[in-house]
Amino acid sequence: MSKKFFSNTRATVVIGAAIAALAAGMPSFATAQQAAADNTMIERGKILTQPGVFGVFTMFKLRPEWSRVPSADRMKAAAEVKQLIEKHKNNVLVDLYLTRGLETGSDFFLRVHAYDLVKAQTFMNKFRATQIGRNADVSETLVGLTKGLNYITKDGSPGLNAGLSSASYTGPAPRYTLVIPVKKSAEWWNIPVDQRLHELEAHTAPTLAYLVNVKRKLYHSTGIDDTDFITYFETNDLAAFNNLMISLASVPENKYHVRWGSPTVLGTIHSPEEVIKALAE
Amino acid sequence: MSKKFFSNTRATVVIGAAIAALAAGMPSFATAQQAAADNTMIERGKILTQPGVFGVFTMFKLRPEWSRVPSADRMKAAAEVKQLIEKHKNNVLVDLYLTRGLETGSDFFLRVHAYDLVKAQTFMNKFRATQIGRNADVSETLVGLTKGLNYITKDGSPGLNAGLSSASYTGPAPRYTLVIPVKKSAEWWNIPVDQRLHELEAHTAPTLAYLVNVKRKLYHSTGIDDTDFITYFETNDLAAFNNLMISLASVPENKYHVRWGSPTVLGTIHSPEEVIKALAE
Amino acid sequence: MSKKFFSNTRATVVIGAAIAALAAGMPSFATAQQAAADNTMIERGKILTQPGVFGVFTMFKLRPEWSRVPSADRMKAAAEVKQLIEKHKNNVLVDLYLTRGLETGSDFFLRVHAYDLVKAQTFMNKFRATQIGRNADVSETLVGLTKGLNYITKDGSPGLNAGLSSASYTGPAPRYTLVIPVKKSAEWWNIPVDQRLHELEAHTAPTLAYLVNVKRKLYHSTGIDDTDFITYFETNDLAAFNNLMISLASVPENKYHVRWGSPTVLGTIHSPEEVIKALAE
Amino acid sequence: MSKKFFSNTRATVVIGAAIAALAAGMPSFATAQQAAADNTMIERGKILTQPGVFGVFTMFKLRPEWSRVPSADRMKAAAEVKQLIEKHKNNVLVDLYLTRGLETGSDFFLRVHAYDLVKAQTFMNKFRATQIGRNADVSETLVGLTKGLNYITKDGSPGLNAGLSSASYTGPAPRYTLVIPVKKSAEWWNIPVDQRLHELEAHTAPTLAYLVNVKRKLYHSTGIDDTDFITYFETNDLAAFNNLMISLASVPENKYHVRWGSPTVLGTIHSPEEVIKALAE
Amino acid sequence: MSKKFFSNTRATVVIGAAIAALAAGMPSFATAQQAAADNTMIERGKILTQPGVFGVFTMFKLRPEWSRVPSADRMKAAAEVKQLIEKHKNNVLVDLYLTRGLETGSDFFLRVHAYDLVKAQTFMNKFRATQIGRNADVSETLVGLTKGLNYITKDGSPGLNAGLSSASYTGPAPRYTLVIPVKKSAEWWNIPVDQRLHELEAHTAPTLAYLVNVKRKLYHSTGIDDTDFITYFETNDLAAFNNLMISLASVPENKYHVRWGSPTVLGTIHSPEEVIKALAE
Repeated sequence: MSKKFFSNTRATVVIGAAIAALAAGMPSFATAQQAAADNTMIERGKILTQPGVFGVFTMFKLRPEWSRVPSADRMKAAAEVKQLIEKHKNNVLVDLYLTRGLETGSDFFLRVHAYDLVKAQTFMNKFRATQIGRNADVSETLVGLTKGLNYITKDGSPGLNAGLSSASYTGPAPRYTLVIPVKKSAEWWNIPVDQRLHELEAHTAPTLAYLVNVKRKLYHSTGIDDTDFITYFETNDLAAFNNLMISLASVPENKYHVRWGSPTVLGTIHSPEEVIKALAE
Repeated sequence: MSKKFFSNTRATVVIGAAIAALAAGMPSFATAQQAAADNTMIERGKILTQPGVFGVFTMFKLRPEWSRVPSADRMKAAAEVKQLIEKHKNNVLVDLYLTRGLETGSDFFLRVHAYDLVKAQTFMNKFRATQIGRNADVSETLVGLTKGLNYITKDGSPGLNAGLSSASYTGPAPRYTLVIPVKKSAEWWNIPVDQRLHELEAHTAPTLAYLVNVKRKLYHSTGIDDTDFITYFETNDLAAFNNLMISLASVPENKYHVRWGSPTVLGTIHSPEEVIKALAE
Repeated sequence: MSKKFFSNTRATVVIGAAIAALAAGMPSFATAQQAAADNTMIERGKILTQPGVFGVFTMFKLRPEWSRVPSADRMKAAAEVKQLIEKHKNNVLVDLYLTRGLETGSDFFLRVHAYDLVKAQTFMNKFRATQIGRNADVSETLVGLTKGLNYITKDGSPGLNAGLSSASYTGPAPRYTLVIPVKKSAEWWNIPVDQRLHELEAHTAPTLAYLVNVKRKLYHSTGIDDTDFITYFETNDLAAFNNLMISLASVPENKYHVRWGSPTVLGTIHSPEEVIKALAE
Repeated sequence: MSKKFFSNTRATVVIGAAIAALAAGMPSFATAQQAAADNTMIERGKILTQPGVFGVFTMFKLRPEWSRVPSADRMKAAAEVKQLIEKHKNNVLVDLYLTRGLETGSDFFLRVHAYDLVKAQTFMNKFRATQIGRNADVSETLVGLTKGLNYITKDGSPGLNAGLSSASYTGPAPRYTLVIPVKKSAEWWNIPVDQRLHELEAHTAPTLAYLVNVKRKLYHSTGIDDTDFITYFETNDLAAFNNLMISLASVPENKYHVRWGSPTVLGTIHSPEEVIKALAE
Repeated sequence: MSKKFFSNTRATVVIGAAIAALAAGMPSFATAQQAAADNTMIERGKILTQPGVFGVFTMFKLRPEWSRVPSADRMKAAAEVKQLIEKHKNNVLVDLYLTRGLETGSDFFLRVHAYDLVKAQTFMNKFRATQIGRNADVSETLVGLTKGLNYITKDGSPGLNAGLSSASYTGPAPRYTLVIPVKKSAEWWNIPVDQRLHELEAHTAPTLAYLVNVKRKLYHSTGIDDTDFITYFETNDLAAFNNLMISLASVPENKYHVRWGSPTVLGTIHSPEEVIKALAE
């Protein structure tokens, strides 16, 4: 196992999971997108912390014929994917994860960030034309976009907001990722805003203790996909993560879930080449 | 990316989404259909604004063998589809959209408008016999028909009706399309008409602000497909669209949905040839 | 399009849709079956109006390899099916419908009537061995049997009964067919008979206006298939049909549906040879 | 059609369908299993009437390649299956049924009885290795075991118990079989035993009239499969069976069903060789 | 059948099934994992009794092409799997089970225990590259981890705790295994801890009588898979197991299940080589 495997090159900002956005008062993302258009290259540290960024998650399952591709061609697939990512580095930020052995529905997945969703689509179509892309079926696609915090704000919930801002991940470099889509019921969306804030405070409070060993990132999907949120996690301690999720299951907000997982996707974190190489053996 | 990509040649009339038709007092469509029969060619501007028009949405997923069709044959597929559309232009209006990279269940879809559903069926069968049609599976078909507004009328809701009539799309040419099937519960259909009007006013009010950056079109399907409505959208601002959909989720009418999406289909808008060419690479 | 396409050779008796049978007092069908056994040939006019007749609906989806069958062999398939139907004409009445282009799950379907279900099974197995049968997958099978009216009777609901009896289809020859399976909840089956009659009167009343342009036929399936009823329709006016179905959705009886469609199958009406030829092109 | 087709060599004991077993006071089946071990051959009359016997139902769907197996090899398949059954006659009792033409999910199914479930598994694995087994996919497996009556007992419900015991099948040899899995809700299992008895008496009473033309057999599956019961029927009168099932739908016990069918499997009764020969044509 | 088949080399600790862990007060598993890292080899007796251990269940279904692999190659598959398990014995403990003939969705499954989940993933990926792994599809994957008892504790429920601790399996070596995933509703997770304890006491009490003939083991999955628990059983008496499960269905806790089975997986216990050999015939 190479050193890189354990390196933590992905700075994921810690923001509250399942902290839903309100339609009212949503700022325009024109500024962030303009800024992006001016840059000639995507910066990981920036794009992972800004609102107004698209995230496309695509789960792939290798077809049986992959094992009949000549071994030499399979081994070249890693370099091909690396080159493709390099070529599109000004348009998209691409991460790969290995789920083979831990999941039924997929062997690996891509997380693609872009300021312009068309550019993410273009990259995904190029990926589908690679050696490994041609030998894999898409088993799940999730599209979402990032937004600023709008329930647990400095004014509305100063204590929790401070808790979210001050805590930071202190564990070893995460080796595991989890992607969990979340959909809320019509009842949830129809309860008054202040009660929703109340429920989200109850949701957020028990999570503070886990900020030291679980990183989180949230994408909003209502109306652009069959889910309301995509919650993305990185951790090195799955027992702690299991306890965190039991905490989240045990607050009233959970009663408003019509989808929580299905699929819950568990994978391991590697460089793109390592993922493809592991699948090429 | 060609200029055409951004051109907005599709004038879609803005009508309320999910504004259900009442069975009582439905006018006969004989007049519109007779008029159509007299014409020798379908006019985009007309057929997209008239009631009594059929809309057939067909989602396609390419089979793995498509990538094994010789590259030259794949490239000819765009011209073949273009010719087929030209040949049937007096019978059907055909639009294609690219979903590959954004969806699990499809790579592209067709939206076919016709005054006579048999002609749409005939066209679709010819399309299935083309090079690309033979290498793709149908993953979803939605059939609906257009009707006039019958809840938010000049008499019943003069304010909202004026709002719907006066607002118009002012954003840049839409690059994205969304197709979202909607099915209402038995409870919905059984509530008194005036309460249903009340719920639809609450549904319509928050949408007015989005008429400037989201175009909408509605098809009715009760009994002719396993959905009640097909809602079709075009936009260039997915963040605004996400906020619109959160608004629609937050009114009581949402409690009567038994299907809203499943699938939500997100694609990009191109000319038919561009769609096929993108898939042929 | 041949003249035959528009010919209306199928006399379908108009009986109430979703008019459920009561177990108590069900007459024996021995008489009808005996009569049938005495005949040496099935008469369309008779078998489509009698109780005690089995109806088997089988939806087929062509496999991709169908398009690789040599064109000459595909064209012979129509004659092969015609001969098979001719050979079994003393055992079963066979209708074919074209759904390709309008449905996801099927390209065509068969409706087979027989006094003896074993004979319908025998025919279906022979059909599976034909050129087109070998290249198609069964995507749905529905088995039901006809019964006499037993809610809306001359004694119980004289007005509605007279309405059902007197009205008849006066529109142009139907070009469309719809097959919609219906399953009722345990609550429905447990409500007292007189209340059930009341609900069915409310269901039947708004349908009378549509008897002039929608033909209906009902099959009973409780316990012999995973549905309670198979409702079969023919119409030339899908807008009227859509309005009829909205009427049926808007009465309390709809609250007792646990399945209504899923799939709703929409097809066009042709002779068997025409259906196979359309698929062979 | 051979005479054997109509012969009724299968003596199926009539016991109450869906008469659930109580965990408390369940006798050990050690005695019956010991007795079986002592016998060197399975006796149909015995194994079909004893408690403590396993029943394995396996539905098969032929793969398209079956039609490409040379005709001579397909015809040999019947003899191969016959020999396999003969070879295992001391371990298992095997019945085959033809569902092709009446079902979507299967073409035929096996019902295997054994005192020792391992022996049923061993037989099934040998069957999978035959010519027809290699060309078929398993589409459904149901595993259950027989128990004695424990609700409608001589002491608890003397009248109904006498009714169940005295009535017997008097119709012509059954040509049809139906297999219907049943699962009850948590609410059912939590109602007091005496109320459950009350509900089962209401369930049993209307079934007595059908004992003359419907044979029934019950298998218990709670915890060993995703169903609580497998109900197996034989009849020659599907109209009577339909009425029986409407009676069972119309009692309160039906409100506690979370699965009733799904799939309902309808087939015809033949000797094993006849089933394979019908599929080999 | 070899003697080994009946040997009981798997010491599975008896712990309460579906005894959920509380997030609060969960001890760190760092100690157990450190201890494991110090050992150079996995000990069955230890890893099956410790908390903080990962369990990965992977169900496999053979593809049709497996039967076309030359017989000699199929027979070598058993030795190949044996060697692979031997090679990884310091990283994972591997058990195989035969489900062919008893299940629809699988032919066999693996249960892999590891202190470090990455090592289980690595082993599974190597298994996928074996002769049999390349010819099988994954039909289900379940990932969980072990924890200590935390409801039925010495202090909280001294009587039941003593019952669980004192009883032990006394039957013949189990020949059957059952794997049943369990998911609880949001309502369950939101009821107060003392009521949850009360419900689990009611759940545990009737199970004590079955500890003599049913072995149980529990894995926790909330948030790391789409289930809350994986319950694993071994028994030689399926009738007793059926009665146990009816007991568990009959307590109020059952009302909080949103998943119980689906799939329920029933298999037989053999050595890994025996499983592969049975499938290679």
